[in-house]
Amino acid sequence: MLHIGTKHVDITDGFWKKRQDINKDITVKAVQNRFLETGRFDAFDFTNEKIAHIFYDSDVAKWIEGVSFILHKERNSELEAFIDRIVDLIEKNRSDDGYYNSHFLRKPEERWQHRSDHELYCAGHLMEAAVQYYKATGKDKFLKLMEDYADYIYKVFITEKSAAFKTPGHEEIELALVKMYDTTGKKKYLELSKHFIDRRGVEEEPWIGSNYNRYNTQDFLPVRQQRTAEGHAVRASYLYSGMADIAYRYKDKELLAACKAIFSNIVNKRMYITGGTGSSYLGEAYTLDYDLPNTKGYAETCAAIALAFFAQRMLLSDADSVYADTVERIIYNGMLSGVSLDGKAFFYENPLEIQPVLNNRNVATTLTERNAVTQRKEVFGCSCCPPNVIRFIGAINEYIYSYNKDTLFINQFISSNLEYENIRAEISTEFPNCGKVYIKVSGINKVAVRKPYWCKYLKLVINDVRSKYSSKKGYIYINLPKGQNRIRLEMDITPRLVYSNPKVYDNSHKTAVMRGPVVYCAEAVDNDFPLNNIVFGKELNYKTVKSDQLDAYMLDVDIKIPQSIDDLYTFTPFKYRKKTLRMIPYYCFANRGETEMRVWL
Amino acid sequence: MLHIGTKHVDITDGFWKKRQDINKDITVKAVQNRFLETGRFDAFDFTNEKIAHIFYDSDVAKWIEGVSFILHKERNSELEAFIDRIVDLIEKNRSDDGYYNSHFLRKPEERWQHRSDHELYCAGHLMEAAVQYYKATGKDKFLKLMEDYADYIYKVFITEKSAAFKTPGHEEIELALVKMYDTTGKKKYLELSKHFIDRRGVEEEPWIGSNYNRYNTQDFLPVRQQRTAEGHAVRASYLYSGMADIAYRYKDKELLAACKAIFSNIVNKRMYITGGTGSSYLGEAYTLDYDLPNTKGYAETCAAIALAFFAQRMLLSDADSVYADTVERIIYNGMLSGVSLDGKAFFYENPLEIQPVLNNRNVATTLTERNAVTQRKEVFGCSCCPPNVIRFIGAINEYIYSYNKDTLFINQFISSNLEYENIRAEISTEFPNCGKVYIKVSGINKVAVRKPYWCKYLKLVINDVRSKYSSKKGYIYINLPKGQNRIRLEMDITPRLVYSNPKVYDNSHKTAVMRGPVVYCAEAVDNDFPLNNIVFGKELNYKTVKSDQLDAYMLDVDIKIPQSIDDLYTFTPFKYRKKTLRMIPYYCFANRGETEMRVWL
Repeated sequence: MLHIGTKHVDITDGFWKKRQDINKDITVKAVQNRFLETGRFDAFDFTNEKIAHIFYDSDVAKWIEGVSFILHKERNSELEAFIDRIVDLIEKNRSDDGYYNSHFLRKPEERWQHRSDHELYCAGHLMEAAVQYYKATGKDKFLKLMEDYADYIYKVFITEKSAAFKTPGHEEIELALVKMYDTTGKKKYLELSKHFIDRRGVEEEPWIGSNYNRYNTQDFLPVRQQRTAEGHAVRASYLYSGMADIAYRYKDKELLAACKAIFSNIVNKRMYITGGTGSSYLGEAYTLDYDLPNTKGYAETCAAIALAFFAQRMLLSDADSVYADTVERIIYNGMLSGVSLDGKAFFYENPLEIQPVLNNRNVATTLTERNAVTQRKEVFGCSCCPPNVIRFIGAINEYIYSYNKDTLFINQFISSNLEYENIRAEISTEFPNCGKVYIKVSGINKVAVRKPYWCKYLKLVINDVRSKYSSKKGYIYINLPKGQNRIRLEMDITPRLVYSNPKVYDNSHKTAVMRGPVVYCAEAVDNDFPLNNIVFGKELNYKTVKSDQLDAYMLDVDIKIPQSIDDLYTFTPFKYRKKTLRMIPYYCFANRGETEMRVWL
Repeated sequence: MLHIGTKHVDITDGFWKKRQDINKDITVKAVQNRFLETGRFDAFDFTNEKIAHIFYDSDVAKWIEGVSFILHKERNSELEAFIDRIVDLIEKNRSDDGYYNSHFLRKPEERWQHRSDHELYCAGHLMEAAVQYYKATGKDKFLKLMEDYADYIYKVFITEKSAAFKTPGHEEIELALVKMYDTTGKKKYLELSKHFIDRRGVEEEPWIGSNYNRYNTQDFLPVRQQRTAEGHAVRASYLYSGMADIAYRYKDKELLAACKAIFSNIVNKRMYITGGTGSSYLGEAYTLDYDLPNTKGYAETCAAIALAFFAQRMLLSDADSVYADTVERIIYNGMLSGVSLDGKAFFYENPLEIQPVLNNRNVATTLTERNAVTQRKEVFGCSCCPPNVIRFIGAINEYIYSYNKDTLFINQFISSNLEYENIRAEISTEFPNCGKVYIKVSGINKVAVRKPYWCKYLKLVINDVRSKYSSKKGYIYINLPKGQNRIRLEMDITPRLVYSNPKVYDNSHKTAVMRGPVVYCAEAVDNDFPLNNIVFGKELNYKTVKSDQLDAYMLDVDIKIPQSIDDLYTFTPFKYRKKTLRMIPYYCFANRGETEMRVWL
């Protein structure tokens, strides 16, 4: 399987066109300004008194990569000049051996000494940025600089073994090196990636600083023996993405088996309904099976994005809809919640429940318990998520189409045009606001369309004739008869009640609502009664209401709530009264001021 | 109203006789040994290299007070010799001015300098011990020493105003001084108590050390203006107890109004179903109305005891059953859970839910989140609770009978004999294991019997004739006809489902079970299925099962649980299967090894 890249796919209209426009017109500039204010760009000219933070390079690199996805479709001389200057600074300031790091070039004696300090992570992000900037603009200076850097890293870690550690403390370079290989054809980058993966967990490596154990960095076992998702969720899913890449390119069944087991562990036991992962703020980490607390849920935006990377790469080796289903769960929920509707503010963490009143819990002491942030911020110190959102939304084109032998796969329902070799395709849809998807193809007669997990009824119409179908591993395989090129999907997106596995401790007796792939939530700002103890009917009675403010469909759902009582405890069963609960898409939460929010009701 | 003290009341058999025997035969010795091991007694002879901890005096004092309650009924030359030696050491080592403190006598320059350092708190506990030791044995040396000490404190805080602070950082001496007054008749002790109460919160006072604000120490407002229970729960309820004492003795309506408002805030908004209070381990404090988390619930044993003190004192001014109801809630649940059935081990905190698996949550990081302790311990550093349990169980005699004008009040249903002036009474009952209570009285013909809040049906039988009754503020007032002296209560203790106010965030959709005053819980050790998502029937179908191991009645309750599923999320409503849930009294939990436990199901 091959994913068809940004270059070949245009997003034409609908849900994602709007998001990409906001991304391009607002978010790119907003993040650029925050990075200018915080000295992240200045770090590259080495005139600052203050030494750059160890992760500044990666923030800037992700922003460049995000901008590059946009440049694919619309060149921009101002942004390119800005980026070219950074590339020039890298060229000017790098070491003769090809090394570049804004932090460690100012502490040369510490180069490759601290496994904990994101050195290879920053290198990886710079490589990803260079690859994408080259693909978008054809300018190869940045890519060449990064080839030198990658060659040098190969020398340090494979030829000379001269670093104080053997594998990255924060994984990321594994998948970046695969992109370097794909772009340059140099096999040694693939070897280096595989080397980092195969060395990982073979022995305990030195670590400086606290907050570390071998679970947190996924090196508690050699990765081929791992079967559960552990530790820092972003590091973990970046590693798993690299593993899936290597498993695919080397046809490495053992590594693929590890990837499959880990993926299964995530989606069947350790993932929020929103696609968020890493339920603990401590270590930003995966914890235990079924431990998915709502108010305390961390679910970092970057972890959702990283899981989408992993899922998308698993699809390369295994045409199973669970992977594109997972991407879909993430893009309409736990990733998209990371950015405000206006594109200017960001969540680092994405809890499934916010109780603002509990932030006052510590009135009686100066000690405070950690509470989830209730509002998106325009800037934060550890700013990995904002540029990650930019590059992810910028690259959404890559998640739609795949190609395998003679079959075109349609993984996501996004209005778009495809031109790939002699294949043409066009998707037109208001999805996820509507369940109808119109597809036209030419140059190929075999099409595989994903049947989403949430879809109870799907009607398939080929050239205006309703067709029977069966599905295999979640894909409907269609052989278009000669002269027929129009496929229409009518998917039932009627809102449905969702229940979590009874083992999920925090969702005991609770219910959620989804409409198609979109998880809904209730906010206090829309409802003049407590959101506690809400009881849904056995069937969901609802009205759909268009919100111009949110540019989304809200649901007005018939529910019951207990009548309020004075007693703290009572032997009298609650009397219930009927109410209408307004629900909004989860990705729209916290766009109207601080307010209580709940997904599980 | 007057509570009839230990001297006049013998516990004859039944539930509390067993507890008092264990208290006398096991717990006193167990805690004495732990205190010997940890140098708490040695601190009094001032030969230790290490200076005593600031709260050691109070631990020893509570132990002496507890022993004294036992000595009321059974003198013990060995224990008395042990205590007499401590008293001699106090006499020997105290300052000429009457001051005694094992910690600050070794740091004389710091005397009365640190409001945070429990100096007046220790003094208060020593006074309470001295009072009770005198009452039990007639030996007045300790009391005289404490009179000197109290006189000196009067001088420092009222006459000379020479201390660096004006009111205690940890309240307790307020109620102790009232006992000193009651025992010695010296009015200045009552004045000193009232002084500490009236000064409190008038201005901000200096504090050394962290973890402080004016809520934590109940001095955010002058106490007469306070209307909610705030801050450190033990400090708070000790203060409120002193306030109730002063309000009663001065007939101070303004102070009583504050007490009533605070008491109402506690029992209607801030108290666990077990009578536990202080829901946050941070600051060991009250938090917000309806903020009563189960797994994280702190509910310190001492806070339960302190609330019983407060409730009992409110009864002095207001013959309302809510006060004795609250005492009852505490003594059969949140206090009694603080000690193991064998009398040797203790809980400092008493959560309403234990999930041992969550203690493994932090596998991926060296950082750890605080989790509730799952097993009672024989010793802990801050050892306020074990001797508090000793003195509370030792003094349970004082919670049964009160006297007001010409009426004998029966507040708790405990098998006992009363001899008070010309009044004789006898209660015989297996309560709380059974609902029948047999009462005989002589020397008085007006009796008021509490009708408990949990009791749906109460049958009143006077000399074998069923009687109609009405109740006033929760008490049934009985005028015994001449020649009739037998009262029988038949209270329905059929187990009942309990619901918490819908505003209690953590009990959303959950139900508890009580049998009479006893709160039940489920432990995983008794049940071979997950305790998540349990559904009770509308009526409680159950069998009562006697447990010899726990010496208690267990309940086997018909319930339904969802069938287990593989998916993490599903659109298919759960299928339920019938099961029998074994429940045990909450006070019996964690006596059979570490296991999951839940009150709210």
